[in-house]
Amino acid sequence: MTPYAMLEERFRRVTALEEVTDLLYWDQVTMMPEEGAAARGEHLTAISIHLHELLAAPEIASMLDEAASIDLDSWQRANLAEMRRKHVHAAAVDPALVAALSRIAARSEGRWREAKAASDFSLVRPVFAETLKLVRETATAKAEKLGITPYEALMDGFEAGARQDEIDRLFDEYAAFLPEFLPKVMERQATMPATVALGGPFPIDRQKGLAHRMMQRLGFSFVAGRLDASAHPFQIGRIGDVRITARYRESDVISGLLAVIHETGHALYDRAVPPDWRFQPVGKARGTVLHESQALLLEMQIARSRGFGGVLSAMLNESFPGHEAAFAPGNLMRLMRHVRPDFIRLGADEVTYPAHVALRYRLERAMIADELQVGDLPEAWNVGMKQLLGLDVTSDRDGCLQDAHWYEGAFGYFPFYSLGAMAAAQLFRAAVRARSEIPGEIAEGRLDALRAWLGDNVHGLGSSASTSEILERATGHRLDCGFLKRHLEDRYLEDAA
Amino acid sequence: MTPYAMLEERFRRVTALEEVTDLLYWDQVTMMPEEGAAARGEHLTAISIHLHELLAAPEIASMLDEAASIDLDSWQRANLAEMRRKHVHAAAVDPALVAALSRIAARSEGRWREAKAASDFSLVRPVFAETLKLVRETATAKAEKLGITPYEALMDGFEAGARQDEIDRLFDEYAAFLPEFLPKVMERQATMPATVALGGPFPIDRQKGLAHRMMQRLGFSFVAGRLDASAHPFQIGRIGDVRITARYRESDVISGLLAVIHETGHALYDRAVPPDWRFQPVGKARGTVLHESQALLLEMQIARSRGFGGVLSAMLNESFPGHEAAFAPGNLMRLMRHVRPDFIRLGADEVTYPAHVALRYRLERAMIADELQVGDLPEAWNVGMKQLLGLDVTSDRDGCLQDAHWYEGAFGYFPFYSLGAMAAAQLFRAAVRARSEIPGEIAEGRLDALRAWLGDNVHGLGSSASTSEILERATGHRLDCGFLKRHLEDRYLEDAA
Repeated sequence: MTPYAMLEERFRRVTALEEVTDLLYWDQVTMMPEEGAAARGEHLTAISIHLHELLAAPEIASMLDEAASIDLDSWQRANLAEMRRKHVHAAAVDPALVAALSRIAARSEGRWREAKAASDFSLVRPVFAETLKLVRETATAKAEKLGITPYEALMDGFEAGARQDEIDRLFDEYAAFLPEFLPKVMERQATMPATVALGGPFPIDRQKGLAHRMMQRLGFSFVAGRLDASAHPFQIGRIGDVRITARYRESDVISGLLAVIHETGHALYDRAVPPDWRFQPVGKARGTVLHESQALLLEMQIARSRGFGGVLSAMLNESFPGHEAAFAPGNLMRLMRHVRPDFIRLGADEVTYPAHVALRYRLERAMIADELQVGDLPEAWNVGMKQLLGLDVTSDRDGCLQDAHWYEGAFGYFPFYSLGAMAAAQLFRAAVRARSEIPGEIAEGRLDALRAWLGDNVHGLGSSASTSEILERATGHRLDCGFLKRHLEDRYLEDAA
Repeated sequence: MTPYAMLEERFRRVTALEEVTDLLYWDQVTMMPEEGAAARGEHLTAISIHLHELLAAPEIASMLDEAASIDLDSWQRANLAEMRRKHVHAAAVDPALVAALSRIAARSEGRWREAKAASDFSLVRPVFAETLKLVRETATAKAEKLGITPYEALMDGFEAGARQDEIDRLFDEYAAFLPEFLPKVMERQATMPATVALGGPFPIDRQKGLAHRMMQRLGFSFVAGRLDASAHPFQIGRIGDVRITARYRESDVISGLLAVIHETGHALYDRAVPPDWRFQPVGKARGTVLHESQALLLEMQIARSRGFGGVLSAMLNESFPGHEAAFAPGNLMRLMRHVRPDFIRLGADEVTYPAHVALRYRLERAMIADELQVGDLPEAWNVGMKQLLGLDVTSDRDGCLQDAHWYEGAFGYFPFYSLGAMAAAQLFRAAVRARSEIPGEIAEGRLDALRAWLGDNVHGLGSSASTSEILERATGHRLDCGFLKRHLEDRYLEDAA
């Protein structure tokens, strides 16, 4: 066996075990009975220990070096680069630190729930400070091996090669755009016809049927996937077994359905990654930016488009007769495009969402750089929210306690939500330019041409190129905030009311 | 860390990964979409490779020796014995042989499906011969290390310490009993009132609701378990997460419900194994004989008892009004106790079932001993069936192709179905003797006293003692065919018609 073949063999196991981990999580939140929680921790720990052994083993480094000197094709070389990245991330950190962080993060997450319920940051502060300390140690250890900053090392785990200056450039551009744009949107919105509110209740069983039919129209295959329910919608799996979840509320069929469409966007990506590389790192979806872009392409670019409005209206009327006024296409547009600066990121409109993200990005970067102390977080949050959206935060629950991420030890993820929105606008414009039949198909509730184009230009590439390379080849540009701005201007200032 | 503590650490991981394997199988047959099959093979392989690494590592042998010389309590000693058994089974066989057998068995199972559909043994014969060859190599390798016969080495994987002479003694006794007993049963059955057949259809949704209520009455907890559907009913999991499956047919509510009761018996055992030893080998259910005994105790001893008949009748009438004559207790007894020699093991009555098992036991023992060639199997099967139940097999589908076990490479399992039936009769008699309120509770549809007794005498012991020790302490006897014979005589020759 060549060193490269040995590495493929090893990473075949790694990839399979990563999928098992995802499946155990899926089971935990959709199927597992209440009392199964303690044992599930043992299951996940047993697999994570072994994953670390497989990835961090010192002999991998020399295998990687030997394999690199041999004649490989471009996919194999890209595969090797992904292997090296995974190896460096794993080997950089002492297993004892991984275990300690995992333990403290579980405690911190628990305290965060209590603190959020009580809207009192001080309850979680001590354990969160310990969590942050270990996150910083982890970030510093990885940064040394990767030759980047600690915060970049954390981002690198979600999005290979992410760099602070690039993200600064994108967020600065949006920060310059929003203060002028938002008042215009609000002003125009005030002149629109009154919105007919959703009547409800919308029975859950019928919402499930509607979600099922919507997913099929968008191209989701139920012989290769599932739809289930969980407290927070998410997606796992690839190719022949892609699963998404939904959360249904009787009072609001629209939010639930838009979340299903979002997760279906994730699902269509992972359904179409290259099957020949099924169990190799290079066969996986590229990263968080493109993954989020695929979800937002469906949820924001398509589902809220006027073209799709007729389809959406017809499907809603068919599932829930008697709500014709609320489900009229124009009214649906006003419901789904309503812009309102608010304290809460989840469910925020696409105009103000990047401001939520920018705030989190600034704060978490400062915490990792030790420039912001845990005790000063609530104040810094509130100042930032005033500055970005003009809102006065009056409780920690609506402020720095609203998201779980940091308290679970997850830093370096937030920026990619908005980079994904930018990439979605950029990719959608390029797709429509390349395949002029796309808008007509969308108006008929079909995505055939769009999926074909995404398959060729994004999905089928797996991780064979970087996010920047994929975007440049597909759109002619590296990631550019301008496409999102243009999309928002078209939709919120130009499009019929 | 002491050698014993190091072993506990390692077997904690082993036990967790074994549970993950069970869960992946459960998902595969209840939840997984059709196209997920190929990837699921990779998931299971990645875990099985690692399980073999953990169990077979040469350093385990010395750790076991060192740990044995240190002061341990009786549970720790029993734990060590179970560790050693698992290590010897794993280390005896070359990983290449394990992989080869796994591959050929998958092919053989596929060919068996085709051969069964065509009722033509010759279609599976070549690949089955290869499978048997590798099973024999495996058995021989294990036998050398364990100091027992190859067939015993295979049985030892399902039931620690199983010996051929013991099984011969039990089956010989039943073989001597059946030819005189069966005609008497048939004769008496002919004099009984005519049975009112089940009317149906019985809607699946209502059958599910009934199964759910029945499980709760028997003591199953739905905060610590689930009920789902699959092609073949089975059970997995332990303590806080025990899952069973059912198969529903609209035409027959009784068979489906009895299978649910059977699986609930398995579930109650695994629900009550010692939680302090949750992730150690000694904390697992003892073995196949006792496990099957718990299922048959509920399905045969209790569900088909006259005392439980009133409960069953009331629950059926509540779920399916309009079938009062079929669901009358006396009629239910005649339906559930109908004895009929037949070609097929699955669904056979409790009188003739041991004959099916005895035939398979003889034939598989002979195949492993190389005394029966694959080409001669159909003829040997048909001769045996004629001799045991007086039936002329006219097609392979009704003969040696009916069960998947052998074609999947599973040898040495069959005898425990009937040893389980014997143990069930023996344990039930002892339980009623020890706790006189049991029959009264059963007539009210409660198993509290019985479950408490089984908890003390079987479930809570885990694998801290051998099957024989557990049976002797609980019943005063080692496994004895006499209790099953007595039970059958009482039920089929004495009990009111």
